[in-house]
Amino acid sequence: MKSPIPKSHPRAQSLYIREKLVAAFDDGLVAKEGLMAHGRGEAFDYLLGEKTARSAKKATKAAAFMLMHAQNPVISVNGNVAGLCPKEIVQLAKATEAKIEVNLFYSSEERKRKIHRVLKKNGAVQILGLNKKNSIRISGLDSARRIVDVNGIYSADVVLVPLEDGDRTQALKNAGKKVITFDLNPLSRTAQTADITIVDNIVRGIRNLILECRKNQSKVKFDNKKNLSDAILEIRDNLTRKANHA
Amino acid sequence: MKSPIPKSHPRAQSLYIREKLVAAFDDGLVAKEGLMAHGRGEAFDYLLGEKTARSAKKATKAAAFMLMHAQNPVISVNGNVAGLCPKEIVQLAKATEAKIEVNLFYSSEERKRKIHRVLKKNGAVQILGLNKKNSIRISGLDSARRIVDVNGIYSADVVLVPLEDGDRTQALKNAGKKVITFDLNPLSRTAQTADITIVDNIVRGIRNLILECRKNQSKVKFDNKKNLSDAILEIRDNLTRKANHA
Repeated sequence: MKSPIPKSHPRAQSLYIREKLVAAFDDGLVAKEGLMAHGRGEAFDYLLGEKTARSAKKATKAAAFMLMHAQNPVISVNGNVAGLCPKEIVQLAKATEAKIEVNLFYSSEERKRKIHRVLKKNGAVQILGLNKKNSIRISGLDSARRIVDVNGIYSADVVLVPLEDGDRTQALKNAGKKVITFDLNPLSRTAQTADITIVDNIVRGIRNLILECRKNQSKVKFDNKKNLSDAILEIRDNLTRKANHA
Repeated sequence: MKSPIPKSHPRAQSLYIREKLVAAFDDGLVAKEGLMAHGRGEAFDYLLGEKTARSAKKATKAAAFMLMHAQNPVISVNGNVAGLCPKEIVQLAKATEAKIEVNLFYSSEERKRKIHRVLKKNGAVQILGLNKKNSIRISGLDSARRIVDVNGIYSADVVLVPLEDGDRTQALKNAGKKVITFDLNPLSRTAQTADITIVDNIVRGIRNLILECRKNQSKVKFDNKKNLSDAILEIRDNLTRKANHA
């Protein structure tokens, strides 16, 4: 896709990512609500200076260690994730020997099939979450959203749920899972509920996570609440900096 | 529309507004990019505590005075504005004797017609921006976006451009207009370029603006840059508060 955005644009990268998501919406991968959620993420990324913060690098190391030492890690993929970084999801699944499960907040069989096709095209071997025979409910969620794959999230010990909703993150915690997430809002319920929250744009962050997983990770002391407070401070510092340059 | 959102939800109001915008998207008033822009606004509104800040109240008084003392005020309406507060736009136009012009960033004759229909349904008498015979270009903008109505924005002394783009705000300034805007991001180019920036959710803010216009306004000393810095400080304070309660 030829982009009209000049490379010189100070926020070109963010605008390329936006185009990518709009294209994924046009292809039927992304929900309307996914477009708005992306806009919320853009605002927080803007406040983070559209770069990976120190706190995110720390969370990424902790996440890599947890994923590489998991018994049965699963990566939950929704429309925005499939639209923004399908190739990287497959690379991460290979690096961590994790399963990939398509799991949508706004469930739709057609969107599921389209996401499945995109992941396949990007090299995914096995993709869970599509075979109704393997559907099972996790408790604490309303009907549509509680369906997971018995061979996937249901039996996982560690679940990576990028760009996830707060209720679902809580439900996964209640089900005894270790939860890792990408969330640009360090104050969101997902961010506050997960065991490890990477406060970063997934397009930048997932590449760093893949690199970390390919290294020999050493266990890092990690406190998610403390790390989230650091992320909030980084946003505050950026606000001050931007305010002074405004 | 029966909403599934419980009144008890801490962020119910924000979710109602979101539903309203999605409905307007389904009706063809709002562009995809408008959904993402709304998401960005939601994030900043969240950081403002989803309430009208002191700085916004001050800007609103200044805006009311400027509108009521304008020779030829024009209200520029795009898809998001028409989707969120068409009735209020008509009320504001009546209170200020301003003209209404439909002016879209992502121009589309069909969207223009639909926006026109919604404004009519909400009581608008005259709506500009639809008659091609009255189209004229303002300089400093690429083709599609520079078209305005010769009887509207082109000949206005004061233009209210809610939820506007930075380039266009600058172009209106270059054309010698006084510009008033609603923008939830106090750091945006629009916010920084306008003469008066109301950093507030337009759904809350426009009601306050209508009330101010109906009073006898007294001239208030107003410095937009200073007021924007106050808005940034209010966001910083909210961040701290939220961080402490997280």
